[in-house]
Amino acid sequence: MTTQQLIEQIKKKKSFLCVGLDVDLNKIPEFLLKEEDPIFSFNKAIIDATHHLAVAYKPNIAFFEAYGIKGWQSLKKTIDYINDKYPEVFTIADAKRGDIGNTSKMYAKAFFEDLGFDSVTIAPYMGKDSVEPFLSFADKHTILLALTSNEGAFDFQTKKIDGTELYKHVLETSKSYENAQNLMYVVGATKAEYLKEIRQIVPESFLLVPGVGAQGGSLEDVCKYGMTKDCGLLVNSSRGIIYASNKADFAEVAGQKAQELQRQMESFLENL
Amino acid sequence: MTTQQLIEQIKKKKSFLCVGLDVDLNKIPEFLLKEEDPIFSFNKAIIDATHHLAVAYKPNIAFFEAYGIKGWQSLKKTIDYINDKYPEVFTIADAKRGDIGNTSKMYAKAFFEDLGFDSVTIAPYMGKDSVEPFLSFADKHTILLALTSNEGAFDFQTKKIDGTELYKHVLETSKSYENAQNLMYVVGATKAEYLKEIRQIVPESFLLVPGVGAQGGSLEDVCKYGMTKDCGLLVNSSRGIIYASNKADFAEVAGQKAQELQRQMESFLENL
Repeated sequence: MTTQQLIEQIKKKKSFLCVGLDVDLNKIPEFLLKEEDPIFSFNKAIIDATHHLAVAYKPNIAFFEAYGIKGWQSLKKTIDYINDKYPEVFTIADAKRGDIGNTSKMYAKAFFEDLGFDSVTIAPYMGKDSVEPFLSFADKHTILLALTSNEGAFDFQTKKIDGTELYKHVLETSKSYENAQNLMYVVGATKAEYLKEIRQIVPESFLLVPGVGAQGGSLEDVCKYGMTKDCGLLVNSSRGIIYASNKADFAEVAGQKAQELQRQMESFLENL
Repeated sequence: MTTQQLIEQIKKKKSFLCVGLDVDLNKIPEFLLKEEDPIFSFNKAIIDATHHLAVAYKPNIAFFEAYGIKGWQSLKKTIDYINDKYPEVFTIADAKRGDIGNTSKMYAKAFFEDLGFDSVTIAPYMGKDSVEPFLSFADKHTILLALTSNEGAFDFQTKKIDGTELYKHVLETSKSYENAQNLMYVVGATKAEYLKEIRQIVPESFLLVPGVGAQGGSLEDVCKYGMTKDCGLLVNSSRGIIYASNKADFAEVAGQKAQELQRQMESFLENL
C-alpha cells in the first residue's frame, strides 16, 4: 500500500485508529475456546466489528508465536482475512525485528512476501544494514522504533550522545538510509510532549503511536504535538478495544470503543 | 540448562563451537529439495555430523519464518530433534526479540516453553522491562546484543554517552537487572579488540561470538581477549560449516569443518 492510499483512507474514514491484535487465550471470552481456532475467531469478530472505524490492524507477533505452529496458523489466517476482505486497511506486523543484512532480508520475506503485511516494526540497535533490507520493498513500510511507550525507554533511548538523545540520532540517521521514504516511526503516546521535537526532525513521516488507553497516553496531546497536514499519525489501541468485554457481546463492545476513539479522532482531523 | 552444565560440556568436548543453522533453500544441496521437509532434513544431517564437536546450535529464526508455517514446523522439528537426541547440547534461538513487558513475556513463552530452547537473543533498545521477562525463567539464558558483528554496529552501539559507548552502557546497566545471572551477551568476532574492555565490565559472563569465518573475525583474537577461566565463549560459525559443500557429502564436509574449528579451540582451551 502506498502512503497516499493510507492518507486517502484516513480522510474517508475520518479516523487514524490502529487496532492492536494482542490476543491472549486467557483474556478472550471463554466460549471461544471451544472453536477450532479461537485466536482467529476472536480476531475475525473484532475485525468485522471495527473495519469501518480503523485504518490499520496491528497483530502483535509475540502473541501468535507463543502458541507455536497453531499460533502461526492463526496469524496467517488473520492477515489473509484482512487482505481478502478489507484490502483497503493498512496492516502492521508488530514484530520488532532487526538483524545483520542477510537475516533481515529473510525477516522481510517472512512479513512482506509470505504473510503479505504492508509494514513491520523494526528495532534500530544494529544500524543501517539491519534496516535497509526492509526498506528495499516497494510500497512496503518499515516502522522503526524511535521512542517507545514503556518505562525502559529511558534506559538508553533518551540518553544523550553529543548533547542529543539516542532516539533523535535514530530519527536523524535513518533519514539517510536508502529508500528512507518507506520509513515510519514508533513514538509512544506516553511521551507525547516529545513529539514537538520529533516533528522538527521528521516533519512529514507517519508515526505509529502506541500507549493511548491502557498505558495512559493522551490522544489530545498526541494530536496537538504530532499531527501533520496529512494526519501523519496512526494511533494504536489494543486492550482498551479488544478486551472491553469478555462476554458474548465482546465484538459489539469493541466496535463501540473503536467508535468512541474514531469520533474523538474525527474532531482532531477537523482542525487540519 | 545451567551454566555449569554448559561449562562441563565445553570441557568434555574440548570445544566452544556453536553451529549456526541459517538454512536457505537456495543454498542447500539440490537433491534435498525433493524431501518432505528439506530444511529439517538438512539440519538433521548437519546436527548428526557435528554434535560431538559442537556445544551449541543456533537456529536463526528468520530463516525459518521466511518459509511461513512450513518454516515454523521445520524449526519445531529441529529443536525437538536436538532436545531428544542430544539433550546435552545448548540451544540458542537467534531471534533478536524485545518488546514491552507483557509482549516480551509472550516471546519468552514461545522460545522457552513452546519450542524448548535454552536461550534466546534479545535486542536491548527498549530497556529493562523488555529484557527482564526473559530473565525470570530459571535455567534459561538471555543473550543480550551488546556489540554486533555488522557494519551498522558503528551507527549507534559505539556512540558515546557521557564518554562511554552505548554498548558498554548496555553491559553495565544489564548487570542490575533482576536475575542478571541468566544473562549472556553477543559480541561480534569482527570487533575482537573490544573484548578486552568488555571483559572489564562482564568478567565472567558467557559471550556468544558470531562473525568468525564468513564475516572475517579471528578465533585467536577472540580467545586472546575474551576467554575466561571457564572459557566464557560460544563462538558461532554458520556458513563456513553448513555450506562448505552443497553436494551429497555436505554433512561429511560440515563435520570436517567443525572438526577443524574444534581442534583450534582445543588448543586455546589448553591455555586455560
